[in-house]
This record gives sequence, structure tokens and C-alpha cells, in this order.
Amino acid sequence: MKAAVFLLLTLLVPAYHTGAQCIIDNAVDLKVQSAISSIVSSTLAKAKLLCQDVSARGALVSCPAGYKPTSCACGMACGSWDIRSDSTCHCQCSGIDWTSARCCKIGL
Amino acid sequence: MKAAVFLLLTLLVPAYHTGAQCIIDNAVDLKVQSAISSIVSSTLAKAKLLCQDVSARGALVSCPAGYKPTSCACGMACGSWDIRSDSTCHCQCSGIDWTSARCCKIGL
Amino acid sequence: MKAAVFLLLTLLVPAYHTGAQCIIDNAVDLKVQSAISSIVSSTLAKAKLLCQDVSARGALVSCPAGYKPTSCACGMACGSWDIRSDSTCHCQCSGIDWTSARCCKIGL
Repeated sequence: MKAAVFLLLTLLVPAYHTGAQCIIDNAVDLKVQSAISSIVSSTLAKAKLLCQDVSARGALVSCPAGYKPTSCACGMACGSWDIRSDSTCHCQCSGIDWTSARCCKIGL
Repeated sequence: MKAAVFLLLTLLVPAYHTGAQCIIDNAVDLKVQSAISSIVSSTLAKAKLLCQDVSARGALVSCPAGYKPTSCACGMACGSWDIRSDSTCHCQCSGIDWTSARCCKIGL
Repeated sequence: MKAAVFLLLTLLVPAYHTGAQCIIDNAVDLKVQSAISSIVSSTLAKAKLLCQDVSARGALVSCPAGYKPTSCACGMACGSWDIRSDSTCHCQCSGIDWTSARCCKIGL
């Protein structure tokens, strides 16, 4: 009789084990999937463009660290410019009095 | 004999309990980690810049709510402009006939 | 006696089952929630604006696939431009020698 009880328990232990893992797997899969799909939208909803303008005398101005120039503006009505090193606005007209950079990054 | 069986079961109950929680913890950790690393890229892959142009007569034009100006363009070949209140393009040349704003936001 | 042991085990099986699921549910909820709140910030911290300049002779230049123009610059000091089809910079001054587009997208 004792042997039978032990045998029964010995057989049951791995059964519980395996069964529980399957249940866990499925439960976690479902929960993680639904959680993921909800944060995909909520995360993106929090993501915003943060922008600021920086201007300086002369023909060059750089964006602060972490910001990228999305555009440049120049004094003297000049619309010819280029961006150097992905960070610095350069106005091309000669004798430029001021240069400004529109600098943006992604943030909360 | 009966007492022995009850004792055995009494000892096994918390063992299952604790063991199951450890298994759950580890399984969830692994699943969540792998799920996270996969959504980090898939979430970002869905994130896009949504842009539109808005233009108006005169020297001022504002972006729609939720959009940020990344640049301005002006009539009369004018390249001198600034952005007011992080939302409004202002062309600086006198007698400007039209002003346009390039307006962007992050979206799906 | 044998019957009693079987009865006991039969009663215990669903009890473990149900109890384990509740524990799993709560553990997963907590873990997923904390994991989510940590990736919301870490995911966004990895999201960056990737920008490049493209320029061409003439009055038109298009951004590469996947990139959106955030601004345009023109030769001849011209600051009057518009964006066509959400992808192509067009400089409006007559006889334009070159046009450039500032092209950005969201990436890691």
C-alpha cells in the first residue's frame, strides 16, 4: 500500500510540472501579446518631436547635443544653405549676418 | 498509515507552490525579455514621420495641433524666417505674399 | 484506504490547478507591467531622427524611400519652395541651379 501511494505521487509530480508549464506558457503568451499591442500604441502616443531654434551671428550655428537640424534659416533673405556633419547649419550667401537652425529630437 | 499519507501531502503542497513560482518567474522573465526585444524593433518600425504643408497669405502660418514646424518657406524668394511659440512660421522679409510651414509629427 | 488517497488526490489536482493560475496571473501582471514601463522609456531612448541631405541640379530633388523631406534649400539664395507628393523638394525661383532636400526618418 505504501509503495502504491509513493508510486502515485512520483508519477504525479512530473505531471503537475509539465502541465503547469504549458498553462504558464499559454497564459504568458496571451498576456504578453495583449500587453504588447497596447503599449505599441501608448508608447508611440507619448513619442513627440521636441524642437527648438538656435541662432548665432555669422554663417554657422550648431544644434545642441542630441538634436538634429531639420532646417536652416539665414539673414539677408538668403535661402541657400547646407548642413555640415549632420549638426551644423551653414548659410552660403556672402556676408551673412545671422544663421539659425531648427533642431529636433524624439522625446516624451 | 493515514497520517503518513497526509504528512506527505502536507509537505508536498508548499513544495509545488514554491517550485511553481520559481518556474513561473523564470519563464515569464525569458518570455517578457524576448517579447520586449522583438517589439522594440517592430514598434519603432511602425513609427513614422507624418508631415504636411500648410500655407497662408501674409507672413504668418501655424501648424495644426499636434504637429511641429520643421521648416518654413516664404514667398518673394525670402529665406529669412523664424518660428514663434514652437508652432508658427514667420517670414521676415517685408511685404511677404505667402508663408508656408512644413509640419511634422510622429505617428503610425 | 486506497479510495481515500485517490479521493484526496482528485480533490487536490484542481485545487493546485486553480491556485497556480491565479498566482501565474498576478505574477505575470506585475512582471509585464514593470517590464512595460521600463521599455517605454528605453525604447524611446533608442528612437532617433536619422537625417541626410540630398541635392541635385535643377529645381527638383526627391528623398530616398522611407525618408520624408523636413525642409528644402535652393541655389541662387532662393527661399521659396514647396514639397510635392510628400517626397520631392521643388524650388520656385526661375532658373534654379541646384535644389537640396533635408530628408529624415525615425530609426534606431
